[in-house]
Amino acid sequence: MISVTLVGSGNVAHHLAKAMDDTSNIAFSNWVVRDTSKVLHETTAPIVTDFKKIPSTDIVILAISDDAISTYSSQIETLKALVVHTSGSVNLSDLDKKHRRGVFYPLQTFSKKRVLDFSKVPICIEALTKQDLQLLKSLSDALGCKSVVISSDQRSALHIAAVFVNNFTNQLYRIAHEISDGSRLDFAILKPLILETALKVQDLSPYQAQTGPALRNDKKTLKRHLKQLDNENHKLIYELLTKSIQQTHGR
Amino acid sequence: MISVTLVGSGNVAHHLAKAMDDTSNIAFSNWVVRDTSKVLHETTAPIVTDFKKIPSTDIVILAISDDAISTYSSQIETLKALVVHTSGSVNLSDLDKKHRRGVFYPLQTFSKKRVLDFSKVPICIEALTKQDLQLLKSLSDALGCKSVVISSDQRSALHIAAVFVNNFTNQLYRIAHEISDGSRLDFAILKPLILETALKVQDLSPYQAQTGPALRNDKKTLKRHLKQLDNENHKLIYELLTKSIQQTHGR
Repeated sequence: MISVTLVGSGNVAHHLAKAMDDTSNIAFSNWVVRDTSKVLHETTAPIVTDFKKIPSTDIVILAISDDAISTYSSQIETLKALVVHTSGSVNLSDLDKKHRRGVFYPLQTFSKKRVLDFSKVPICIEALTKQDLQLLKSLSDALGCKSVVISSDQRSALHIAAVFVNNFTNQLYRIAHEISDGSRLDFAILKPLILETALKVQDLSPYQAQTGPALRNDKKTLKRHLKQLDNENHKLIYELLTKSIQQTHGR
Repeated sequence: MISVTLVGSGNVAHHLAKAMDDTSNIAFSNWVVRDTSKVLHETTAPIVTDFKKIPSTDIVILAISDDAISTYSSQIETLKALVVHTSGSVNLSDLDKKHRRGVFYPLQTFSKKRVLDFSKVPICIEALTKQDLQLLKSLSDALGCKSVVISSDQRSALHIAAVFVNNFTNQLYRIAHEISDGSRLDFAILKPLILETALKVQDLSPYQAQTGPALRNDKKTLKRHLKQLDNENHKLIYELLTKSIQQTHGR
């Protein structure tokens, strides 16, 4: 059984810890947290609060902020463990060279408030040797997850793609919220449409799934929408995304 | 039992017909289609191909293209029926005044290829009298749907909001598809994130649900992402939506 030390108490650490607590396939040996009040669920793992003394296990997972990864990995002593981080945007080479190094990046949006089926999260793994890659694959398997071997360059592109489908998409929801508020409409009426839009591309490609006035080049509607939008930034976003749809579909 | 004549064979008509076929609460009396090859499922309704002779029922639903609604409603003879259209962006007053008029707008993205639970679709209704509004509410109830009374002005704003959460969101998925293709990554890896992003705002507000480098004002990551994007239009969209997130959250 793979033994794991988890370092950190943020959103990713929280869900990873929960997933490890919920399976008997992994020896969740230590959870290193600075502030124990951030541990929000009953855990099977002993809590360690000394960030300097990391117990060595098969794998040490640094689920800490992007900026801290490089420095922290150089500050801790050399471990026998495979040391991995969980970031979408930090290069494997940013981990200190004295360690066996890897990446274990769960591609999902994590909030402590949300209950999540961790087994549905794809894990992007990277390591320097076949053995270490196999170890990360086994860890992913033990969590019931699908893993994909992805280079640091690919992960960097994937992280940008994730910003588009998550952060930017969520901001479009926010803009819709502002528009519905502005017309005294309950945002909730848009929720089935939001969900179906996401469900649609589980089966169809986004190219096939596209509909609407921009695709049809329905100039009358496009013009009226632009006239109706009173927020300048929303107008610009409307114009730019309309243009983008039309470029994609050769309109 | 409410009797209904449906006119049209596009995406909305297809799903509306299917929903009416699937319930015994509605007398689906006539389905008026020009081209019978567009009827893709076995229907309980008699098919009528003469667009000029509309049989009168309690309600006549014009599920035809936006541009055709006004002209068509003036070309058909005066009916005893309540004549409604299903469009998000056409004013109630665009229907010819000789009819009892209304709007029955199902707020969803419809594709013939997709199976859809129609009872989950919110119906935006509008009419000129209480009786007609009640009739549309009863039709919506008979389909198992929730209905909301919405004015033409509100519907117009709602349609813009729908463009943001559906067409524009789908275009962000498309851009992510281009980015993942560009790095030889399977777009499928992003699907759980796409779905969770939509599920998250079923419970949290988009404001609460936001995460990522724009929200954190993580300048290093924002700069690197912009440097990595090689499509000028994607760069502009990245900048504009980052700015929008930061304005919303006062960063």
